[in-house]
Amino acid sequence: MDEKALRNLLQEIKGGKLSVDQGLEQLRHLPFEDLGFAKIDHHRSLRQGFAEVVFGRGKTADQIEAIVQRMLPQKHNILVTRSREEVFGRIRSLSPKARFHRESGTIVILQDDEIRGKGTILVVSAGTADIPVAQEAVVTAQAMGNRVETLYDVGVAGIHRLLDARERLLAARVVIVAAGMEGALPSVVGGLVSAPVVAVPTSVGYGASFGGVAALLGMLNSCASNVSVVNIDNGYGAGFVASLINRL
Amino acid sequence: MDEKALRNLLQEIKGGKLSVDQGLEQLRHLPFEDLGFAKIDHHRSLRQGFAEVVFGRGKTADQIEAIVQRMLPQKHNILVTRSREEVFGRIRSLSPKARFHRESGTIVILQDDEIRGKGTILVVSAGTADIPVAQEAVVTAQAMGNRVETLYDVGVAGIHRLLDARERLLAARVVIVAAGMEGALPSVVGGLVSAPVVAVPTSVGYGASFGGVAALLGMLNSCASNVSVVNIDNGYGAGFVASLINRL
Amino acid sequence: MDEKALRNLLQEIKGGKLSVDQGLEQLRHLPFEDLGFAKIDHHRSLRQGFAEVVFGRGKTADQIEAIVQRMLPQKHNILVTRSREEVFGRIRSLSPKARFHRESGTIVILQDDEIRGKGTILVVSAGTADIPVAQEAVVTAQAMGNRVETLYDVGVAGIHRLLDARERLLAARVVIVAAGMEGALPSVVGGLVSAPVVAVPTSVGYGASFGGVAALLGMLNSCASNVSVVNIDNGYGAGFVASLINRL
Amino acid sequence: MDEKALRNLLQEIKGGKLSVDQGLEQLRHLPFEDLGFAKIDHHRSLRQGFAEVVFGRGKTADQIEAIVQRMLPQKHNILVTRSREEVFGRIRSLSPKARFHRESGTIVILQDDEIRGKGTILVVSAGTADIPVAQEAVVTAQAMGNRVETLYDVGVAGIHRLLDARERLLAARVVIVAAGMEGALPSVVGGLVSAPVVAVPTSVGYGASFGGVAALLGMLNSCASNVSVVNIDNGYGAGFVASLINRL
Amino acid sequence: MDEKALRNLLQEIKGGKLSVDQGLEQLRHLPFEDLGFAKIDHHRSLRQGFAEVVFGRGKTADQIEAIVQRMLPQKHNILVTRSREEVFGRIRSLSPKARFHRESGTIVILQDDEIRGKGTILVVSAGTADIPVAQEAVVTAQAMGNRVETLYDVGVAGIHRLLDARERLLAARVVIVAAGMEGALPSVVGGLVSAPVVAVPTSVGYGASFGGVAALLGMLNSCASNVSVVNIDNGYGAGFVASLINRL
Amino acid sequence: MDEKALRNLLQEIKGGKLSVDQGLEQLRHLPFEDLGFAKIDHHRSLRQGFAEVVFGRGKTADQIEAIVQRMLPQKHNILVTRSREEVFGRIRSLSPKARFHRESGTIVILQDDEIRGKGTILVVSAGTADIPVAQEAVVTAQAMGNRVETLYDVGVAGIHRLLDARERLLAARVVIVAAGMEGALPSVVGGLVSAPVVAVPTSVGYGASFGGVAALLGMLNSCASNVSVVNIDNGYGAGFVASLINRL
Amino acid sequence: MDEKALRNLLQEIKGGKLSVDQGLEQLRHLPFEDLGFAKIDHHRSLRQGFAEVVFGRGKTADQIEAIVQRMLPQKHNILVTRSREEVFGRIRSLSPKARFHRESGTIVILQDDEIRGKGTILVVSAGTADIPVAQEAVVTAQAMGNRVETLYDVGVAGIHRLLDARERLLAARVVIVAAGMEGALPSVVGGLVSAPVVAVPTSVGYGASFGGVAALLGMLNSCASNVSVVNIDNGYGAGFVASLINRL
Amino acid sequence: MDEKALRNLLQEIKGGKLSVDQGLEQLRHLPFEDLGFAKIDHHRSLRQGFAEVVFGRGKTADQIEAIVQRMLPQKHNILVTRSREEVFGRIRSLSPKARFHRESGTIVILQDDEIRGKGTILVVSAGTADIPVAQEAVVTAQAMGNRVETLYDVGVAGIHRLLDARERLLAARVVIVAAGMEGALPSVVGGLVSAPVVAVPTSVGYGASFGGVAALLGMLNSCASNVSVVNIDNGYGAGFVASLINRL
Repeated sequence: MDEKALRNLLQEIKGGKLSVDQGLEQLRHLPFEDLGFAKIDHHRSLRQGFAEVVFGRGKTADQIEAIVQRMLPQKHNILVTRSREEVFGRIRSLSPKARFHRESGTIVILQDDEIRGKGTILVVSAGTADIPVAQEAVVTAQAMGNRVETLYDVGVAGIHRLLDARERLLAARVVIVAAGMEGALPSVVGGLVSAPVVAVPTSVGYGASFGGVAALLGMLNSCASNVSVVNIDNGYGAGFVASLINRL
Repeated sequence: MDEKALRNLLQEIKGGKLSVDQGLEQLRHLPFEDLGFAKIDHHRSLRQGFAEVVFGRGKTADQIEAIVQRMLPQKHNILVTRSREEVFGRIRSLSPKARFHRESGTIVILQDDEIRGKGTILVVSAGTADIPVAQEAVVTAQAMGNRVETLYDVGVAGIHRLLDARERLLAARVVIVAAGMEGALPSVVGGLVSAPVVAVPTSVGYGASFGGVAALLGMLNSCASNVSVVNIDNGYGAGFVASLINRL
Repeated sequence: MDEKALRNLLQEIKGGKLSVDQGLEQLRHLPFEDLGFAKIDHHRSLRQGFAEVVFGRGKTADQIEAIVQRMLPQKHNILVTRSREEVFGRIRSLSPKARFHRESGTIVILQDDEIRGKGTILVVSAGTADIPVAQEAVVTAQAMGNRVETLYDVGVAGIHRLLDARERLLAARVVIVAAGMEGALPSVVGGLVSAPVVAVPTSVGYGASFGGVAALLGMLNSCASNVSVVNIDNGYGAGFVASLINRL
Repeated sequence: MDEKALRNLLQEIKGGKLSVDQGLEQLRHLPFEDLGFAKIDHHRSLRQGFAEVVFGRGKTADQIEAIVQRMLPQKHNILVTRSREEVFGRIRSLSPKARFHRESGTIVILQDDEIRGKGTILVVSAGTADIPVAQEAVVTAQAMGNRVETLYDVGVAGIHRLLDARERLLAARVVIVAAGMEGALPSVVGGLVSAPVVAVPTSVGYGASFGGVAALLGMLNSCASNVSVVNIDNGYGAGFVASLINRL
Repeated sequence: MDEKALRNLLQEIKGGKLSVDQGLEQLRHLPFEDLGFAKIDHHRSLRQGFAEVVFGRGKTADQIEAIVQRMLPQKHNILVTRSREEVFGRIRSLSPKARFHRESGTIVILQDDEIRGKGTILVVSAGTADIPVAQEAVVTAQAMGNRVETLYDVGVAGIHRLLDARERLLAARVVIVAAGMEGALPSVVGGLVSAPVVAVPTSVGYGASFGGVAALLGMLNSCASNVSVVNIDNGYGAGFVASLINRL
Repeated sequence: MDEKALRNLLQEIKGGKLSVDQGLEQLRHLPFEDLGFAKIDHHRSLRQGFAEVVFGRGKTADQIEAIVQRMLPQKHNILVTRSREEVFGRIRSLSPKARFHRESGTIVILQDDEIRGKGTILVVSAGTADIPVAQEAVVTAQAMGNRVETLYDVGVAGIHRLLDARERLLAARVVIVAAGMEGALPSVVGGLVSAPVVAVPTSVGYGASFGGVAALLGMLNSCASNVSVVNIDNGYGAGFVASLINRL
Repeated sequence: MDEKALRNLLQEIKGGKLSVDQGLEQLRHLPFEDLGFAKIDHHRSLRQGFAEVVFGRGKTADQIEAIVQRMLPQKHNILVTRSREEVFGRIRSLSPKARFHRESGTIVILQDDEIRGKGTILVVSAGTADIPVAQEAVVTAQAMGNRVETLYDVGVAGIHRLLDARERLLAARVVIVAAGMEGALPSVVGGLVSAPVVAVPTSVGYGASFGGVAALLGMLNSCASNVSVVNIDNGYGAGFVASLINRL
Repeated sequence: MDEKALRNLLQEIKGGKLSVDQGLEQLRHLPFEDLGFAKIDHHRSLRQGFAEVVFGRGKTADQIEAIVQRMLPQKHNILVTRSREEVFGRIRSLSPKARFHRESGTIVILQDDEIRGKGTILVVSAGTADIPVAQEAVVTAQAMGNRVETLYDVGVAGIHRLLDARERLLAARVVIVAAGMEGALPSVVGGLVSAPVVAVPTSVGYGASFGGVAALLGMLNSCASNVSVVNIDNGYGAGFVASLINRL
């Protein structure tokens, strides 16, 4: 989208020729910026309430750098998921605000720190080894303007650790639960709270955990009705869904 | 929970010995009613905002009848999922308000028609054959006090049918999408709206659809970030999660 | 093994030619009775502490009847698993002591009611629909001479129902846990008790439960270290293993 | 096939002893050249309209070099798939026309640039990470004498990017669609065009994408009837099938 | 689409206000007819060269009847797949031209017998038990205006039966191959012809054929490059794809 | 193959124009008889040492009857596998020699009782429920001219039953082992004998036996090197392979 | 749990205000020590009869070191599973008693060598390659205070090696069996002994062993009733379960 | 087995106290040599006609060296499968006759070159990449005293290459077929020959070949009745089974 078109649009709104609703509607359908190997959609932030996220996996450092460069002027927060040290070096040259969360490989550029979520998102992990996935959810939810709290290592085999935190669980507006192995924690948490629970299975485990499949199946078959599920290790997706819910 | 305990508790609240919050807290942890083969938890409606749901599958008609009988005096809405004609006959004898949704096998007793959801839940189906699952979501969300609309037979191979309904999609506060076969519809819907999308794969299909597994995997791997997923054919779960979100 | 051989053996023991230990050793290796389509091993009761069990599935009523007929004179308890009404009719003609447990399809002939187990075996089920499998475990453990208690419908989504029974859990010498769907209950129970937990996944569930696979994987990946697992719906196996442990 | 046999055959055709049809028929069944570890079939270009392709995976550099050396004199285009830098060094010594497409590991020797396809083949990719597979299809279709166009990063979660290119989609005679994750793009494209769509699932994704299985299943279960499918990451196969169709 | 709109459009074309191309373009995007449970798209015949197909599975007889009733006036051929005797009774009342292919459960109403395909489509089956699926392909291709031939029971374990028909194989413009069990036939056929081969795995087999999965995998991994694949038992899809190719 | 061609061929052999080897060679490649839905190959008995087997599954009674009718004059033994009572009625009308093995659904017409196998084939089953599959192997091997013995119900959990039969095991020239559940018996038998062992997994079992998959995997991973495997429940295949080996 | 609370508790016991049973009960529910990334539960040793085990996989060396440091003062035995050389270096600095079992990656700190098990635990392995998993079970059981014996390389294809050790098998109070490939050994052992058998499948094998899945399925489907199963390669779990049983 | 026992035995045979049959019988059951981590069974060569094979995978170089050292004096051929360069160095120091087949990682020590097989074993491979597995079969069969021929790169997509070798196929007494991808070759070969066919699937392929699973399923579902199957990549097993058959 070139600047001129945007300027015209906004002036029409200002001049009363276009209502705000009409303007918003037009912006929803404005074209995207085409880099050949990627099509950047600056207006997704309007459509979905967030800047374009760059999925780092499968993209070269050159590609990521080029995409982020086009995004920076929009002044939205920028999230590069599943990235690596080398890419971070490139991105930090573009913006000193870039931060690298090594555990989850997430790069964040916070250019907008307004809190938009109405309550607290609580991110719970079953074990210590699930923390990288949980952290991806934390980073995502923070970048989308939420207050986030964490509760780690409260797996179901030591249920008193979880019950001990019952008040924090009940206080959250949305709960994200990351768990590997048998993936049972979302069911127990789901039974304790009335908030929506977003469950994210992790690939933590061995043998018959099949890289997170056991946890995924456990969550899909949860006997708690308030649980919905995202892909294995998809901390980003859990953080995104929880953010949308928390804005309502 | 016996009546006496409940009476005392409420009188303490009335008399100011207990604040409403304290009372609510106590009720959350009150014991359940034990029928031997099942433990009914009348207070789940307080804890999770809804009366106990009876999962009909795997229970005898006798068991379901006994459970519903204990629930009726609470004056909450009652939902019996995955049920059958024979059971409905029994339940109708208990309450003339009972209705049977044959397509999805759901029995509903509406004793409370207050609207608690703040917006509209839109239930979308990809094909005609997905309607029974979609209907289970509709019935659930209605029983939980929501305004529900439907949009059926808008599968992705005829994308203009979906785009034609764009305004209804954008107007919804939460969207439920039921789809079998390749399960692609939630991804397309997810890209069109900024609301949370609850995807429910159906077992519609044949051959390599593997009873809904293809649709399930498609949804878990959705490239739209606002999609979370429930179990195959779990219209009830989708309706429940959407209801919780719509109350926020 | 013909009677004559047995008589000789026992007279040698009586006469002191053979010590009891020697006699026992010989009996361990005595041959079996060959019906052509089946080889009955009356001495398994000596070797494994229990009469031959007849696995009903895949055997004709004629075959089962013939096998039980040869077993009756041994005066051990007899268990026919996965059986059906028609077979029970035949067996009751052989022995008026035969009882049929319709839920699990188990026929039991109790000819010996000595209690051999040293403590109590507690059989726990997650839901009402898991009871038939749980009952198979109960019947098996009783037939093997154990005191058995049950605790049903205490699934993890209502964790207070389980915690409410903590004392009974702690009092058991061995715990059997039957659960379908996500199969999370053994992990929670395992964390609460110090006794060995025998987990039996059930085929209860739908969609991505894959006939009990989700529950099976959940149990194999349990984060509680005191859990071991038997086959899906194998209430008999769970009862057998628990009985062996309870005799120690 | 030795030169002498070929010469005789052609002279018989020239002399009218053999019709062209008879000659073609004979050539179809002429023997192959046997290297011991491989049997080269120079006449496949007559039988299938293209020179022998060398599948690089699982062959040593020595083997590939030997095979290409025998092929060069035929003056057909040569394609080495799934190859690597080291092999390319060897092949470039054999022919300066050799080109290496690093992204997909394909080596091409273009010795014949006649356009044989009657229309345009459009190669579409869902995401940036799917481009290597898409490129293998592009390179293959070009080597087989087709006009090829590309349309990249038009995944279904941003459907306007795809609709924006509707004219290019409608103009293609055959469409190849490469997509990972949920593999939904071929269904949407299939609904927009009346041309045959060759879908190629890619292994792009993580967790429950299972190395391309989710995308594969999505494509096999496509609700668009004009979609057929090749193996995961098989850009070569998609390019080959599309080329055959485009020649008709 | 109401008649009035259609009339206007056609008059504008007749009057020269709209070129044929413009008219066609408009028709492509005209809305569909909405029955509530289904959205009929009469113009798909323009967009994809064929009348709307009714997938019978999962639809009630009432629904199918209502859909066909709306389609009949368009005078296109109509295909109802995966149907049953009862539905055929209904359809025959609507049109005496309706025919029922019992083997594959397909109902066809031929209202247009123009041959549109440029060559012959050859439908090959590996065994006698694969014929129902093959017939679904035959019926589909015929209804779409193609000359169709069949070659049945030529499985690879008796390769001489196939070689015996080499001339017919070479004469076809497109080949459809239906095979269950190991699904090897498309590979052998693919090596013999230069035409595109559309492979359709069937669920014929037992044990480790897993309902057609073995055949499906065999075809996806075909070493013949001219093979693409449709879903298990999807004779309709194979016939449709082959028809599109044969029209080019 | 018509009689005239056969007569000419044989006269040429008689007259010395053709050696026996040449005659045999020609017969190997003589065409088959084409019934349209099936191609009967009377000479397979020459090529593979046995009359055409009719796989009953997926064929109508009409089709089977027609095929058998053409086979009868050849005077070979005829085997119809996976058949049913109704078909047997038809076949018995064709030949009074027809016998029906109800357990395995096999129809046999013995027209040639020459013993061609050089030793004994021993068919072993793990349990009583595996006998139908074992019987299919027995019937097949007998129809192919072998001496067959059986050893049933010698599963590995009662290893003394197997060891007791060690002499019979060692006396066999080929051993077939049918087992369901964990499929361990072929490994133990394989370690006891030096003969080739043909293992046939059965679908006997429940839960995680997955219809014979557990047994199949057990046999494929056998630590005994003399074991090869056929498909689940494929008693016919095991009998056929063993017969070929026993003729050597 | 802070020291002060513990002191008070113990003084109350000493002073008679609390019986030992009451004290034990309280200790069972005392809180854990929270390190942020992990919650250490010193009292699990009281609840489950063993010190907290540190699962090494997925934890950083820093995390493991910090956890072990807090555990050391409790004077229980400490087990770090799935660890590595680097971590061992750290742990040895903390305690000179630390020992590293390289085969299984287990670190053990023995601070308490009391024998608590009442009999012998026999650990059996099918092959040499299964020894690392077997050793994990050995180390675990020893650290939990058991007499442990081993019997290695007694796979079922050489059954005489196993039978040769029958006396040692019969002498054990609990038997652990580790086996990869077809996983048949637990069934055979289970048939020979009357003790409980804990089966642990190993990932030893290739091809269709699927990383231990074949062995796992074999064990779950065991025809020996005294077998229960733990996760693939879970030697620790087998050792733990066997230890609990041996203490009874 | 110590020398003394062997000497006594043989002298008894010589002196006529023991018949040869009795002696052979005793030798069959003589104990094995116990190295602790492995139990070597020198008499397997008597029981199974071949020296102990050492499965190299999962064994340390020390272990393999120790085992081979004990085997050498027996003067049988020795085979170490799945080995590596480093191990070969050790073995060559033990015996200058050791040879290393790099492609398949097999070490062979030929100490006995007597031909025991009665005919020729033909080893066929579908592609060049399948040769390493084929070679393992070749090496095994040669070490077991067979004449072996090879026929490589005759995959089914170029069926004329296979038909061209029909005479060699017909001349073999046993045929081994190694194939990856769709694994169709054994079916075609099986239809051409009357000899037993041992099929060995290879892990050659990509995407939906799933590491050889597609080929394995293809072979198990073969429509040729003379095919039996061994594990994926198990060239050794195929060679062993074929050798046993060829000795008959």
